[in-house]
Amino acid sequence: MKSLFEPESIAVIGASSNPNKIGYKILDNIISSGYKGKIYPVNNKGGEIRDLKVYKDIEEIDDTVDLSIIAIPAKFVYDAVKKCAEKGVKNCIIISSGFSEVGNRKEEERIVEVARKYGMRILGPNVFGIYVAKSNLNATFGPKNVHPGHIAIITQSGALGIAMIGKSAIDHIGLSAVVSVGNKADIDEADLLEYFRNDENTKVILMYIEGFKDGERFIRALKKLPPEKHVVVIKAGRSKHGAMAAASHTGSLAGSDKVFDGIARQLGIIRAENIRDAFNLSRFLSEINMPDGEDIVIITNGGGIGVLCADACEKYDVKILDNYDVLRNAFGDIIPSFGSWKNPVDLTGQATAEDYRKALERALDNSNIHGVIALYCETAIFNQNDMVNLIKEMNEKYKNKKPIVFSLFGGEKIDKAIEELKKGGIKVFDEVYDAVAVMGAMYRRYRYAKEEIEKEELEIDSEKEIGEIIRNARKENRGVLLPHEAKRIMEIIGVSIPDYRIAKNIEEAVLYAEEIGYPVVMKIISEDIIHKTDAGGVALNLENRAEVINAYQAIIRNAKAYYPDARIRGVEISKMVPKGVETIVGATQEPTFGPTVMFGLGGIYVEAIKDVSFRAAPVSVREAKSMINEISSSSILYGIRGEKRRDIEAIVNVIVNVSNLIARVREIKDIEINPLMVYESNKGVKAVDVRILLRGLK
Amino acid sequence: MKSLFEPESIAVIGASSNPNKIGYKILDNIISSGYKGKIYPVNNKGGEIRDLKVYKDIEEIDDTVDLSIIAIPAKFVYDAVKKCAEKGVKNCIIISSGFSEVGNRKEEERIVEVARKYGMRILGPNVFGIYVAKSNLNATFGPKNVHPGHIAIITQSGALGIAMIGKSAIDHIGLSAVVSVGNKADIDEADLLEYFRNDENTKVILMYIEGFKDGERFIRALKKLPPEKHVVVIKAGRSKHGAMAAASHTGSLAGSDKVFDGIARQLGIIRAENIRDAFNLSRFLSEINMPDGEDIVIITNGGGIGVLCADACEKYDVKILDNYDVLRNAFGDIIPSFGSWKNPVDLTGQATAEDYRKALERALDNSNIHGVIALYCETAIFNQNDMVNLIKEMNEKYKNKKPIVFSLFGGEKIDKAIEELKKGGIKVFDEVYDAVAVMGAMYRRYRYAKEEIEKEELEIDSEKEIGEIIRNARKENRGVLLPHEAKRIMEIIGVSIPDYRIAKNIEEAVLYAEEIGYPVVMKIISEDIIHKTDAGGVALNLENRAEVINAYQAIIRNAKAYYPDARIRGVEISKMVPKGVETIVGATQEPTFGPTVMFGLGGIYVEAIKDVSFRAAPVSVREAKSMINEISSSSILYGIRGEKRRDIEAIVNVIVNVSNLIARVREIKDIEINPLMVYESNKGVKAVDVRILLRGLK
Repeated sequence: MKSLFEPESIAVIGASSNPNKIGYKILDNIISSGYKGKIYPVNNKGGEIRDLKVYKDIEEIDDTVDLSIIAIPAKFVYDAVKKCAEKGVKNCIIISSGFSEVGNRKEEERIVEVARKYGMRILGPNVFGIYVAKSNLNATFGPKNVHPGHIAIITQSGALGIAMIGKSAIDHIGLSAVVSVGNKADIDEADLLEYFRNDENTKVILMYIEGFKDGERFIRALKKLPPEKHVVVIKAGRSKHGAMAAASHTGSLAGSDKVFDGIARQLGIIRAENIRDAFNLSRFLSEINMPDGEDIVIITNGGGIGVLCADACEKYDVKILDNYDVLRNAFGDIIPSFGSWKNPVDLTGQATAEDYRKALERALDNSNIHGVIALYCETAIFNQNDMVNLIKEMNEKYKNKKPIVFSLFGGEKIDKAIEELKKGGIKVFDEVYDAVAVMGAMYRRYRYAKEEIEKEELEIDSEKEIGEIIRNARKENRGVLLPHEAKRIMEIIGVSIPDYRIAKNIEEAVLYAEEIGYPVVMKIISEDIIHKTDAGGVALNLENRAEVINAYQAIIRNAKAYYPDARIRGVEISKMVPKGVETIVGATQEPTFGPTVMFGLGGIYVEAIKDVSFRAAPVSVREAKSMINEISSSSILYGIRGEKRRDIEAIVNVIVNVSNLIARVREIKDIEINPLMVYESNKGVKAVDVRILLRGLK
Repeated sequence: MKSLFEPESIAVIGASSNPNKIGYKILDNIISSGYKGKIYPVNNKGGEIRDLKVYKDIEEIDDTVDLSIIAIPAKFVYDAVKKCAEKGVKNCIIISSGFSEVGNRKEEERIVEVARKYGMRILGPNVFGIYVAKSNLNATFGPKNVHPGHIAIITQSGALGIAMIGKSAIDHIGLSAVVSVGNKADIDEADLLEYFRNDENTKVILMYIEGFKDGERFIRALKKLPPEKHVVVIKAGRSKHGAMAAASHTGSLAGSDKVFDGIARQLGIIRAENIRDAFNLSRFLSEINMPDGEDIVIITNGGGIGVLCADACEKYDVKILDNYDVLRNAFGDIIPSFGSWKNPVDLTGQATAEDYRKALERALDNSNIHGVIALYCETAIFNQNDMVNLIKEMNEKYKNKKPIVFSLFGGEKIDKAIEELKKGGIKVFDEVYDAVAVMGAMYRRYRYAKEEIEKEELEIDSEKEIGEIIRNARKENRGVLLPHEAKRIMEIIGVSIPDYRIAKNIEEAVLYAEEIGYPVVMKIISEDIIHKTDAGGVALNLENRAEVINAYQAIIRNAKAYYPDARIRGVEISKMVPKGVETIVGATQEPTFGPTVMFGLGGIYVEAIKDVSFRAAPVSVREAKSMINEISSSSILYGIRGEKRRDIEAIVNVIVNVSNLIARVREIKDIEINPLMVYESNKGVKAVDVRILLRGLK
């Protein structure tokens, strides 16, 4: 990747002297941006462009070429790529469109194939190019004017990407790089993350994504990022119409938004809903040092804006300091009687710039206060210069000590003050919700970094035995494991199941029932009978020998009547477990994101409200806990209406183990434990019903 | 109220010649704004200010005074108000602070009392004044520069209100009026709505509210507004910290945010989270004509921004037209092959202004398309002038025909284009989510106006009998009605209950059980035994005569053992009802908003996730339906997992009747039907347990 971002020589294939052509614009941008490496325009017409010799063919260049940029009609691209590969070019950016995005998938594959053969990497096709601040390289046909800085933009949308460059310039937002990934025929986000991981210039990676080709690889790359490298993602195509539109013009899968949301939490990714938020959050994260703690203070000259700010703090999960001793000590003597030293600290509309300075200093010098949100409403006594100077001074003095963000609200003078402060790199917003949103993103990253990253992986001693069970099922052409096979796998991975035996005749049934202890449940075992209850193949709550005998006979009779040719492997006798809180643990090889695990409460209500949480598998203990806490009905597990707390640790254990199973045994397509009965603390769980499907079979 | 907004003469008490004083600023603003009525400065120093004679006392003014504005220290206010009242002044605006907002409630009450005695109305205290466009009157100490227009702002926060005036001016937002309500000692939002209801100049009423003094009156005033008068509300103090801060500086109650949210839906109020949204929505609603239907089309030159827009449409409940026949007919022949005529209609980055015009015209001329969201990303071929002219032309031609909103995104040129278009009154945003949000607010109002406003009120024939039951309970000093009393009230208002009798002895118990039919439930009736189950006073599922006899004896014995002195009124025998979906219907005299009604699903899950909906009572059939549809678990009532649809009409009936009861019989403080058992369609509901509390008693 290094040679893509820091090439020593670049060939522009399709270079043109016509300023309206993309082949001119790219060459012009490369030259104008001050690129220090060698530039080789290529065009079969030859001649000169911008004082550079034009080569008729890439082969003519008597030098190694790190990067070729191809801007010629789609039908000529394959040949050009092939020549580049043969010459030993390291990377090709294919600007040209007309490939998989219009259904021409074959040509795209052919191009990647030849590149791979020679070890050359491809960015694109259907991209606007690449910008790299530290290489002084603007190899795009987008705007010339880019501010260097610390945010790397990766965008799947070309038009939006170009517009984002323009917008970042007028908003004084500095970029370390911009990469248009287009059709992602070869290089995708995961490759680029690999580069940015080690790029000291990049503090925030801002991604616009519509869909994934290999979500699992993407997750692996994200996991490798250090916590000080922040990731902000706009994941478009969340809605039905949005996903359809995205699929039609990118050919990649949007993936379930709910699953992506779980993964984003897991990996500490900041999701931004729209571009304004993405820019605000990225800029803030790229310029801020992490705070020492979570207690923030709101300083305001207006009660109303303070109330709005407090509301926003709740929305964005920013903690408002409410230790009255600390607050009274800090502000008690400088607040007028009709103001408030409680948080929000209200200086009232009569506060002068001097009063404001005092309050800011008190907050910023106090080690019990870890961050400050400073609000100001335009009043009759507002003086633009005083306020701008004060804020600049405070910012200069404290910006490296603790996070501080400003929100000024009012008319023309305020507007000018904001513009001036923004140019000075000060974190200032007119809308107070924006100011709090950036603090919220910072604290999300703060919490993510603080959590110790545990690396627990389950030791599956008997992975071999699991393999045998699966092989056996495959041999018999079964895509669904039999109940006792699924239960055996649960035992192997350490998930508690009700005691069970398999009876082949009445005598065994009675014997086993008495070994297990009444009451018991009996179920027919047959891969041919899917709907066991409909077939009369299930008997519940059997309390004695006589009932077991009757039930055995009835089950066999019913099964044979229902499906005369069914292979009957016996009758499962299992312990009837007491009622607990019903939960569901599921795991699947998700088509977009790879192995994922799911948790939710069971029962009809939860099916109705879809109250479940997802993560990429495997998950740690910490992650499993946060999956449980994330569902909105989790209070049931913690005990409401006088009920006792449930054995949450036992659920965590199941989630962790099932997540390891799905991540390690890729032949398993789908696992569902439903219900997982959960008992009171220390009384464990029971996986009452377990269904395991295999890949590639029905 | 008319004389407050359109006074013919104004006295400014506390007028000053010192430009730093509020008493000067107000006078100066009144003069500068071009007010045509008479102005009488009052100050005991006398003299002249701005060429106007200063009266030493209001009594000296030899004319009637419609409005007095008082800006003197708090301790002198009472006397000034009294003099105004005695002189026959119609309205007083008390600018001065130092009253209930700092705990000085008594003085404020004394002032209102004297004003009421003379029929004078008070705005304030603790306000910045009033602005009225049609009276050319800026009687505030805020900014001079206010754009006249069609939005009336009512604000509880002074500092924020002044800042909002400033912000509206720089954003070219036109105002019809601004009123600062401050402590609302007398005039509150309800009074002001009364005026704006008939003010043709006002199309949108934008309110910043932190708390209510009389929420019920406010609701009544909102209900009277015609559907073409839009209301946008920022309700601050939603969060715990926010509500605390609001209470401490306004002294009014924030009220439950969840209840307010229900009322906002009921009355078609647009809730804005923050000030930016409130301004965007208000401006749009003040300038737009309602559309003819809900099918909108997105036109874009960039796929990515189109996907984001589709996502935003889902978020804001804007319907994307997906009739492919209509779309193909409209756009099929003008879209390049690599674009899309599906919605979002994607012209691709190569679209010229001319292509863009064609698509817009097709959309705007098509009667199957009711609204247009037009997006544009800055591209290399973007021409600022062409685009600005095109949009202006399209807007001019079509703005009165159907709603159209633009979102342009990019760098400096786009920024300038937006600024120019905004000045021309065109609805244009840089953030696409903002563009869709305003459309969403419009459609919320559209739907609200379309729904026929039903006026159904329950006829409670036997309101007299309800009164007697309540009187009887009061006579016995009971705050809780006995179960059979509550059930009788349910019968009276037409809510179905299980058949029941009250037995005084074993013989009656058996007789009644057999009349009702087994199985039955038996419960002790005694106001002294609250926790009947704990006292052994309940027996369920009694299936025959012997069980009834045993249960009767046990219940009486247990009750006497539990509480020897308990007054025992007998034993209730009622039909054991079959299991259905358990729901809850509640109603209460809410401290802030008056009578309200609540609906939710019963059971532990719903308690855990608080999935309930609220409305102000009484509600219509339509409103009751929307309460049911609004809860997130409503799919259970519509039948999931093969279950049948439940009798939703019967629930609606209960909600409507209970809401009428709470609204009409104010002596009832609280009603809870839990569970209301709901059966399959046409099989009705049963109010299994009903609890009714009375006001003012425990």
